[in-house]
Amino acid sequence: MKKANAVIIVIGNEILSGRTQDINVSFLSKWLNELGVRVIEVRIIEDKEDSIVKNINELKNKFKYIFTTGGIGPTHDDITSKSVAKAFNIKYDFHKEAYEILEKYYTPEKFNEGRKKMAKIPEGAKLIYNPSSGAPGFIIKNVFCLPGVPSILQSMVGELNNKIKGGKKILNKTITLRTVESEIAEPLGKVQNKYEGVEIGSYPFFKQGKVGVSIVIRSTDQNLIFDCHKDINDFIKKKKIETI
Amino acid sequence: MKKANAVIIVIGNEILSGRTQDINVSFLSKWLNELGVRVIEVRIIEDKEDSIVKNINELKNKFKYIFTTGGIGPTHDDITSKSVAKAFNIKYDFHKEAYEILEKYYTPEKFNEGRKKMAKIPEGAKLIYNPSSGAPGFIIKNVFCLPGVPSILQSMVGELNNKIKGGKKILNKTITLRTVESEIAEPLGKVQNKYEGVEIGSYPFFKQGKVGVSIVIRSTDQNLIFDCHKDINDFIKKKKIETI
Repeated sequence: MKKANAVIIVIGNEILSGRTQDINVSFLSKWLNELGVRVIEVRIIEDKEDSIVKNINELKNKFKYIFTTGGIGPTHDDITSKSVAKAFNIKYDFHKEAYEILEKYYTPEKFNEGRKKMAKIPEGAKLIYNPSSGAPGFIIKNVFCLPGVPSILQSMVGELNNKIKGGKKILNKTITLRTVESEIAEPLGKVQNKYEGVEIGSYPFFKQGKVGVSIVIRSTDQNLIFDCHKDINDFIKKKKIETI
Repeated sequence: MKKANAVIIVIGNEILSGRTQDINVSFLSKWLNELGVRVIEVRIIEDKEDSIVKNINELKNKFKYIFTTGGIGPTHDDITSKSVAKAFNIKYDFHKEAYEILEKYYTPEKFNEGRKKMAKIPEGAKLIYNPSSGAPGFIIKNVFCLPGVPSILQSMVGELNNKIKGGKKILNKTITLRTVESEIAEPLGKVQNKYEGVEIGSYPFFKQGKVGVSIVIRSTDQNLIFDCHKDINDFIKKKKIETI
């Protein structure tokens, strides 16, 4: 059995050029986390066929799930569907149901070539319905192809909840302190060494001219989080560090 | 001569879990673009040694520059410096100048183990000075290691401007239209086919309940952008599409 993990592939030059700020990764990660699926890696790649094919082929056996965002629209730079079909050596053609959905969604005179293109997906793929704007995403093998526009993507993932088989949910507890990392690095490292089944992250921040550190304890085991939290509280008290 | 390109490796579980929204990628991409360096790929990876080592080794010969963000602080989960040293099989030890900078920055009683750790970097690395908070980043071979906190990272890249050798700057022109992608997909594809040296991106958006599309023309050749823009304007006029 593969571990319940995932990789997200963000397809789009607009993210790589810095023009557009991606917000799909954090949305998908949080959603997958709730389902007990851990995102292990994210790749942001160019919308070039060879790049998409190469990455899908490299990652498809390494992770239980691959999510792609972007590149399933009607324009010339939307090449995700075609490229994913190529990666799996599957025919890329009109999908009957997708075609019917789009045919219904648009009036006949509006159902032009660009819109018809959005009905072309890898043969045998299952659709991911789109309540926002008609054009569906799709699932082929372990690859879930979603659009790049955040509001549309967010409206589509709900129906996937029962299609994703997650493991234990990753629980977390955040402790926010009025301190700097260097003041807690040593005792925090000791606590981390004590708990193997727990992952402790330390994240400094600067807000309104004040410094602070968020300590995040993550584990699938709530008891371990409790124990670990207690040990951290012990050294915080000893050091007289203020919590926020 | 290698092409003036780059990959950004974001190191940090807090980005992968969705807890923290990365904003360093878009900042670095825009800055590199100004210097004539094109970001071809971004990877967001776990802060695990084997993951960092594997990615550095896989990417170091594929790209002219590698930028890493995150993991150079004082806590147990800050393992970028050690891991990058391992990837290049270089000694990881106290760096004289980095040690002196930190020694001066902190009072003796504040210069604890965690803070001393930030002076440990791969042997022979050049420092990237940190005007915000003392602890430097570093350059080893073609890898530039920067911190994860955006405000600190942003204060550090300025001095790198003369250390990066870019190619021709990638110029761009954006045309924003009150339309939907499907209405322009066909003529836009034709324009793209006509201009090989130009990359045309089409990005739909939804703002305040209204739909629109931004067309972005990118090229190192200003004349090609002009010509391409003209051709796009021609079909926009013909189709009576409003610009925004």
